[in-house]
Amino acid sequence: MFEIKNKDNLGRTGIFKIGDSKVKTPALMPVIHPGKVSLDVKSFGAEIVITNAYIIYKNDKLRDLALRWGVHKLIGFDGPVVTDSGSFQLAEYGDIDISNREIVEFQEDIGADIGTSLDIPTPPYAPYKKAEKDLEITLERAKEALSSRKNMMLNSVVQGSTYANLRRRCARELSRMDFDVHPIGAVVPLLESYDYKSLVEVVMASVECLPPSRPRHLMGAGHPMLFALAVAMGCDLFDSAAYMLYANDDRLLTPSGTYKLDGLKEMPCSCNVCVEHTPQELQAMDKDKRRDLIAAHNLYVSFAEIRRVRQAISDGSLMELVDQRCRAHPRLLDAYRRLLNYQELIEKYDPVSKKSAFFYTGPESLKRVEVYRHHRRLNRLPKKRGLVLLSAYNKPYSRHVPEDLGEFFSQAPVEIDEWQFMVVDIPFGIIPLELDEFYPFSQNESPSTLDVESENFISSIIKKLEGEYEAIIVSGDVNRRFNLGFKFRVEPPHIKFSDRDRLVAVADYQFGKGAGKALFNGNLQIIKSKKTGRIRYVYADDELIASIRTSDGFIIPSWKGASLLHSSLDYPRCRVVVNEESEPFAREGKNIFAKFVIECDKNIRANDEVLIVNEDDELLATGKSLLCSEEILDFSHGQVIKTRRGRR
Amino acid sequence: MFEIKNKDNLGRTGIFKIGDSKVKTPALMPVIHPGKVSLDVKSFGAEIVITNAYIIYKNDKLRDLALRWGVHKLIGFDGPVVTDSGSFQLAEYGDIDISNREIVEFQEDIGADIGTSLDIPTPPYAPYKKAEKDLEITLERAKEALSSRKNMMLNSVVQGSTYANLRRRCARELSRMDFDVHPIGAVVPLLESYDYKSLVEVVMASVECLPPSRPRHLMGAGHPMLFALAVAMGCDLFDSAAYMLYANDDRLLTPSGTYKLDGLKEMPCSCNVCVEHTPQELQAMDKDKRRDLIAAHNLYVSFAEIRRVRQAISDGSLMELVDQRCRAHPRLLDAYRRLLNYQELIEKYDPVSKKSAFFYTGPESLKRVEVYRHHRRLNRLPKKRGLVLLSAYNKPYSRHVPEDLGEFFSQAPVEIDEWQFMVVDIPFGIIPLELDEFYPFSQNESPSTLDVESENFISSIIKKLEGEYEAIIVSGDVNRRFNLGFKFRVEPPHIKFSDRDRLVAVADYQFGKGAGKALFNGNLQIIKSKKTGRIRYVYADDELIASIRTSDGFIIPSWKGASLLHSSLDYPRCRVVVNEESEPFAREGKNIFAKFVIECDKNIRANDEVLIVNEDDELLATGKSLLCSEEILDFSHGQVIKTRRGRR
Repeated sequence: MFEIKNKDNLGRTGIFKIGDSKVKTPALMPVIHPGKVSLDVKSFGAEIVITNAYIIYKNDKLRDLALRWGVHKLIGFDGPVVTDSGSFQLAEYGDIDISNREIVEFQEDIGADIGTSLDIPTPPYAPYKKAEKDLEITLERAKEALSSRKNMMLNSVVQGSTYANLRRRCARELSRMDFDVHPIGAVVPLLESYDYKSLVEVVMASVECLPPSRPRHLMGAGHPMLFALAVAMGCDLFDSAAYMLYANDDRLLTPSGTYKLDGLKEMPCSCNVCVEHTPQELQAMDKDKRRDLIAAHNLYVSFAEIRRVRQAISDGSLMELVDQRCRAHPRLLDAYRRLLNYQELIEKYDPVSKKSAFFYTGPESLKRVEVYRHHRRLNRLPKKRGLVLLSAYNKPYSRHVPEDLGEFFSQAPVEIDEWQFMVVDIPFGIIPLELDEFYPFSQNESPSTLDVESENFISSIIKKLEGEYEAIIVSGDVNRRFNLGFKFRVEPPHIKFSDRDRLVAVADYQFGKGAGKALFNGNLQIIKSKKTGRIRYVYADDELIASIRTSDGFIIPSWKGASLLHSSLDYPRCRVVVNEESEPFAREGKNIFAKFVIECDKNIRANDEVLIVNEDDELLATGKSLLCSEEILDFSHGQVIKTRRGRR
Repeated sequence: MFEIKNKDNLGRTGIFKIGDSKVKTPALMPVIHPGKVSLDVKSFGAEIVITNAYIIYKNDKLRDLALRWGVHKLIGFDGPVVTDSGSFQLAEYGDIDISNREIVEFQEDIGADIGTSLDIPTPPYAPYKKAEKDLEITLERAKEALSSRKNMMLNSVVQGSTYANLRRRCARELSRMDFDVHPIGAVVPLLESYDYKSLVEVVMASVECLPPSRPRHLMGAGHPMLFALAVAMGCDLFDSAAYMLYANDDRLLTPSGTYKLDGLKEMPCSCNVCVEHTPQELQAMDKDKRRDLIAAHNLYVSFAEIRRVRQAISDGSLMELVDQRCRAHPRLLDAYRRLLNYQELIEKYDPVSKKSAFFYTGPESLKRVEVYRHHRRLNRLPKKRGLVLLSAYNKPYSRHVPEDLGEFFSQAPVEIDEWQFMVVDIPFGIIPLELDEFYPFSQNESPSTLDVESENFISSIIKKLEGEYEAIIVSGDVNRRFNLGFKFRVEPPHIKFSDRDRLVAVADYQFGKGAGKALFNGNLQIIKSKKTGRIRYVYADDELIASIRTSDGFIIPSWKGASLLHSSLDYPRCRVVVNEESEPFAREGKNIFAKFVIECDKNIRANDEVLIVNEDDELLATGKSLLCSEEILDFSHGQVIKTRRGRR
């Protein structure tokens, strides 16, 4: 059973319960060779391992011991053990002498916690017909495995070669069956040829159609250089045979690439092995000792990277980490750029508010989901007739507008009087001044030097706006910098918006069109922080409507506020619908669990404020969504809404 | 005494001899507080430390002990100890009660290995007049310190606030005096305000005018996030009080930023502390124990980063590391971009051939020194009348030209018959086909997706070429991709160049105009590798002229080849002139030491092949330069040329 704890882009940290064990994800599963002495992987941080059932099965002695002792004792690991089925050997040698049903039953017999059916790992760029035929067999065997397993959890591998539609088909079919984990298979040849771009396509096609409630295992991706990228695509589990294979070949893993020992003058990390030894010392050792020390280094750096990735998700800075990692090799940069094309899918899963600031780290940042989402959500605000574009000064923008705004220009004489004020800045392009305290418009940082892609990005946004407004006025700075050629020198309208205007804009932007009017149409009393001058609480006729969260400027509606939203916004907007059984708990303000949710607004994202209603659309409670709509509906266990208040 | 071992951009690894100790640079010097118990910094990798003489002087007990025991025993470190003078306290508190002469003598009295005069650390953005006045005092005190020291080595700090001309003036004046190390001072306020862009300007102005033969110490820059960038600017020494100050404040250093312990769910690195503890455990500990553990982590990561930087210099991949590190914060990206504007200065010091491939990691890569140098060196090749621009396929380009080259276009009908063939590719823009096996034209990797700045880069190069050739023919690909608008469909000339053409082009490119004709004008016999098909040896009339190095395509002239170059290329081209005393050693093929060099060609770069001559320009030997011309002339000790062969 899998539970999501934190999210960032498609990445998530979670807890994967396997029997009595709880495994933190993303997790790295060291591969334990059943016949060989290994390092004590637990001491490096391993909570789960993987071994090969087929190798055990093929060796009389190992098979006997495994059947007698169980696989845990055989490999000396008392936590969860995943077993692979021999598909790899099938792919390598073309044929193996055991049936799918037999290997599944054998895995259960030796006490594997998670077993695997005998899928067909079709290599990348296989002929389409072959990939399709292989896929049918893989799916058949998956079904057969389900029917033969008793209590063991089951892996079911997504195949389909490099054909996105086959990967999607496979993922969709498997998601309808009762599996526990979904490995994404046959990607090793892509890794070996540095074809990370195709890796992105294969993984994204698979992840798009896999249920978010089950962990995904990127099979064979044991290089720490790939962890951040793979996790950002939604992968939760990694196996590493690499730590030992590379060590055997005197190669040291690091999150930014591999070093051959004989090319090293200095040890590349802060681990115990790197602190205690020089490359020269290692080279002088006997092979076995050297291999174990390098394997230890490889495990140290791999687990450290997994920890860093988990931390980044919790901080909301996963893409900043991906960006750094993908600068380590041009092919990784290709992959990163490819991933950024999947904005629509990523936007569904990415939380609307995060702890970390958004860092601009290169033109790729312009394609990040936060920017994409902003440009979609701008449509939630009512259009005014005219637009004034201001230069960006310090943040929050509206607090730092200078006394003298300088020159302004328009294309033609201007006579309208209803203006929207926006600031022009990187990376968000245009930001309505009323939103300047809303996440992430104060919580971002860009270089002061504008690169060419940023210039083009802004120019093209402004060009597009020209059709959407009756008139545009731009500051002299903006006009010159982006070569807009506005000629008429004009007096800009006075920048003015009331606190109510700000609240209405934020509400529309946060909850969707009309929310602002619904919430803030009474006789408002607005309480501001004495220290920061920011709005903290909004009352209407002595009743609390909403508070404004300081960290991200989000509106947290009170019960009254929630009622106003509920009566103004049509079903299913902002709603999470729970079943009858759970209604009393919801009314009492208890948190909402996935299994009680019947329906929800497709636009709900993690960290959104939501309305909890019953099947008659009666408001039962308000709360914060921990997951996005897809996840809320897909999970059948675990908490999905942190309830703020019940109707009582 | 300082000796350079490896170079990359302005960065260098070296050995700094202090008394009997040899310190590997770049080096990190942990700050040891004389009155407090410290970690055993040696066990973390410290070869040199720094402590504050003024603090010792001010405390009666410490002063007594220091005078009795010496500073080494006082702080418990038996390697080289640097002492600071109290300038920091001067800057903080405005005044201190000791004179410059007294503090210099005191440092010598307590046995400091390297002492420091009492300079005036003018803060950034101080009024110019003040900065100038402070500077005069700093220079006066530097002179005074020189006159009062006996045997102790002396630091002399470059000041000048944020005024590049004052920094340059200070550096130039100090470089004329007999100091051993040059700290670059008063940058801490820039670090504290994340003003890394100004840091680059201050450091680059200082480094430009400091002698390359003395180590430079970036004072107060103890955050590992900055080490790669600072080393790429030519800094060799760092001090870290940060490891303890940050620990005291529950903050963990990493090369990509700082973590507050209470924001951590996972430990951020592979060090012992991070492997053995969780953030929760650390939080529960008592303050002293926690501080020491975090300080240990901070030292582990700091020394690991120093090792990584040294390794990167030795590999020739320092800028790839800088690129990754500078993606950690937008202000660092600003600084990196600023640094890339100093191409002319960097080019003088950067070696012409490196072990690592050049990785394109973003538009910044287009401004790297390898690209800049290429465009300057293209002028070394004789211009042909016409130019054919080909699409890039695999590398080396000339081996992968497809049978069918597709369509070609020109601007007007073409009638000339003397063509230069060039490939259009990122990051080098245009590469003559004859140079495709020369470093780094086979040794580079770019993403397959062309970003906007790369497109603009290529377009603008091609636009500029239009004036330089009578006719240009471009492949259909190139024409469309870069929107060149060439209209006449033409048959391209047959791609053909002889082995001699290749050799001549490479020689001109490597040694300068005319070198090709000088070397390869006889009746050539060309020996190729059976395995790779590449040219390995060139004979003329049975005499070896040159061999071609496989790793980078460089021409290594034989004695005969060197003689041909010597007689054709005017003095001082490619020459290193040695004095009479060393002539016998040079003739015997002994390596050349700096102190024997009288003059050399200003165009010599590290890793260039050079001619060693006497004052009468008689050829004595051939060799490979280990340093660039500036360094060869500035150093007065250490090896500068690895001699290949003497005249005998």
